[in-house]
Amino acid sequence: MATPRPPADRPLRLGVLGCGNVGSRFVELVDTEGQSVAQRTGIGLEVTRIAVRDAAKPRADFPDQAGLEKRLTEDAASVVVDPDVDLVVELIGGIEPARTLVLRALAAGKPVVSANKELLASNAGELLAAAGVAGVDLLFEASVAGAIPLVRLLNESLAGEHITRLSGIVNGTTNYVLTRMSEDGLEYSEALGEAQQLGYAEADPTADVEGYDAAAKAAILAGIAFDADVVASDVFREGITNIGPDDIAFARRLGYEVRLLAVAERTSPPEGETGSSRHPGISVRVHPAMVPQTHPLASVRGPFNAVFLDGAAAGELMVYGRGAGGLPTASAVLGDVIDAAHHLREGGRGRAVRRRAPALTPMLALRTQYYLSIDVLDRPGVLAAVASLFGEHDVSIRSMEQVGLRGEARLLFITHSALEADMQATLRALSDLDVVERVRCMLRIFS
Amino acid sequence: MATPRPPADRPLRLGVLGCGNVGSRFVELVDTEGQSVAQRTGIGLEVTRIAVRDAAKPRADFPDQAGLEKRLTEDAASVVVDPDVDLVVELIGGIEPARTLVLRALAAGKPVVSANKELLASNAGELLAAAGVAGVDLLFEASVAGAIPLVRLLNESLAGEHITRLSGIVNGTTNYVLTRMSEDGLEYSEALGEAQQLGYAEADPTADVEGYDAAAKAAILAGIAFDADVVASDVFREGITNIGPDDIAFARRLGYEVRLLAVAERTSPPEGETGSSRHPGISVRVHPAMVPQTHPLASVRGPFNAVFLDGAAAGELMVYGRGAGGLPTASAVLGDVIDAAHHLREGGRGRAVRRRAPALTPMLALRTQYYLSIDVLDRPGVLAAVASLFGEHDVSIRSMEQVGLRGEARLLFITHSALEADMQATLRALSDLDVVERVRCMLRIFS
Repeated sequence: MATPRPPADRPLRLGVLGCGNVGSRFVELVDTEGQSVAQRTGIGLEVTRIAVRDAAKPRADFPDQAGLEKRLTEDAASVVVDPDVDLVVELIGGIEPARTLVLRALAAGKPVVSANKELLASNAGELLAAAGVAGVDLLFEASVAGAIPLVRLLNESLAGEHITRLSGIVNGTTNYVLTRMSEDGLEYSEALGEAQQLGYAEADPTADVEGYDAAAKAAILAGIAFDADVVASDVFREGITNIGPDDIAFARRLGYEVRLLAVAERTSPPEGETGSSRHPGISVRVHPAMVPQTHPLASVRGPFNAVFLDGAAAGELMVYGRGAGGLPTASAVLGDVIDAAHHLREGGRGRAVRRRAPALTPMLALRTQYYLSIDVLDRPGVLAAVASLFGEHDVSIRSMEQVGLRGEARLLFITHSALEADMQATLRALSDLDVVERVRCMLRIFS
Repeated sequence: MATPRPPADRPLRLGVLGCGNVGSRFVELVDTEGQSVAQRTGIGLEVTRIAVRDAAKPRADFPDQAGLEKRLTEDAASVVVDPDVDLVVELIGGIEPARTLVLRALAAGKPVVSANKELLASNAGELLAAAGVAGVDLLFEASVAGAIPLVRLLNESLAGEHITRLSGIVNGTTNYVLTRMSEDGLEYSEALGEAQQLGYAEADPTADVEGYDAAAKAAILAGIAFDADVVASDVFREGITNIGPDDIAFARRLGYEVRLLAVAERTSPPEGETGSSRHPGISVRVHPAMVPQTHPLASVRGPFNAVFLDGAAAGELMVYGRGAGGLPTASAVLGDVIDAAHHLREGGRGRAVRRRAPALTPMLALRTQYYLSIDVLDRPGVLAAVASLFGEHDVSIRSMEQVGLRGEARLLFITHSALEADMQATLRALSDLDVVERVRCMLRIFS
């Protein structure tokens, strides 16, 4: 379907789906900054319709109540096909009805800007294909890491770059918790409680502390960096709930900070596939890691996010900023809207993306160094038994420290580089050992 | 002049001016990565002509000698008007003949990608106006901070953002020197000598250590961030040659690292101008500063660059990476070329930029905290004399430390926030004081 270009002599009309934290900040931003944006970019913007679930709900924090109310509607389906809407901004969240609405908007020839992490982490391939068929933009900068312009960086600035690895701190809640544990010696539960009080963590923190939020973002980022159709369930995931102040203190003594990392990297092709006939494999994972204190990711503190990129030509790059919050996210949405508006006006459009099925390298094929903390009975011969068990599984110990603990002892190990499969087998064997009370915490070492 | 769009069924033909460190890496990148770029972006690229000063000069490090030679020419003027060149890549450096060649290429309707810091820091307004008239792109991501995608970040991702301040470490040489002085206690001259051995510093380091290089980059960045026609000579500039290990050690004890910062920020309108009728003023400056160790800029070590942005909606953002080097810079050039190629193919173009004359706030109007180190005669009453002199100039001392020094004493001061004009008057008065042997080092405190 050919879409008529909106005339240049009137503002571009935006239909906004959802008016929660991000939506209301976005509408406010367009209302207040619209004129200055028009001066700078030549793009006039106007929010003409706002679809909400309950139009009668009070939205007291919105400055222009009258202006808000006359644009509200409960009929989202009509907004996405409204001939008076040039561009759709999807800020509902969740998969349905967002997915259906976005598909309808694209089919109606309207560009879509979305901040929907869940949707993009599960259906990006389908939606990008629909945008390709319709010949319009689907932009989603705000779906990952808030105001940090990662999507555009990967899609445009680094379009000519061969990215080999992407490593990020993409969850502000867990980074806040780990920073407080590290710098102020708090227990995990104390730091989490504080994060909840400050509004950084939800009452049910599962999505953050178990790594689900980071895994969704890792899927979106890996998809862009490697043009691959990665979804959240493809991502190996471990959370931070087993980490204690001891682990963090030990890491610091060795020159590391503990961070929850999302890593997406190119690997050799999976075994059994010939490398020449296929694109290389990719590994996508989220887990706590020990990051060297001299690495820029170690200096990312509190609720901030950052993504570190290794590029074949560009070398090392990092972007840092606020990964969440209504206003920063609304700012990222506005950047996308201006971009899509330029494309609409000038007849161009964003990059057509052809995504491939990813050749996922299983986690067990990872090779890295490990930190391990176990509680054992404090009796002679225990260390020998434990150490020989590492050796039996081809995991070589690089350093060990013992901490006394009322009748028990805590053993802290750093291994040489080992295969994840071997390390997992070692963990299982350790758990079965009589003298081992508990395998407390395992961290991978980032290098 | 209407330029015919190049047909989509053949590669886009690039005319490259200059084949030095960046030029040869760029040609190599297009030769080797061209096919993979075409797969990912749909843009085929081909370097068809390469203008050099001396075509007979051996270029031994280039892999494809035969392929290189048949494209070489000494006639740069013919390349920029060659009907078989779709896009011009200017990698000569310096103002002339680069300026004339770029203007001719734009007048001939060819988009230009430039990595030329000197040219953009002095003539960006003129060149952007010429590009506007011709209706083609002038892109210059690689002119500042190498592979770090700052220009695109400011122009596109943050197009809807009100940037209030931009603070950067944009010179890798001085950052390497300061890092070595800080972490390993080296003297300035030792650290500089090492930087020269490693190829981070030139034999004549003036442009780096006196802040000229950073000032040119500050002008380019301020121009983009504030749509203002800032040139290098508008930038207040101080270098790092007066800084000693003592200053750095004292800063660290107080929780700061010393960095050479380029700062561009919005200010209140200059005195005598009414604020409502004018755009706000801007202050652009380069000087060494004490940066709090908890600030992300303090963790930028060695030859790396980073720019920290304060945005009204986006909040704090930082980008970090390699600011120099042939391959990273070539990678940034390639990103621009792909962008311009998209615009050529699809009929769009980059943002039309209307630059205003900047309302520059004079340095003397700055208000900040200062660190000051002076050597005085070690006799009674000296401290009182010095302290009263601060007071006479409305500079209030926050803390003082005295270090004994064989018959002399070194006094280290931190002031409360003061006006630069008052601080400069204090420095002049201190120099005139009999008991002051030497004003050693003054650093502004970044907050």
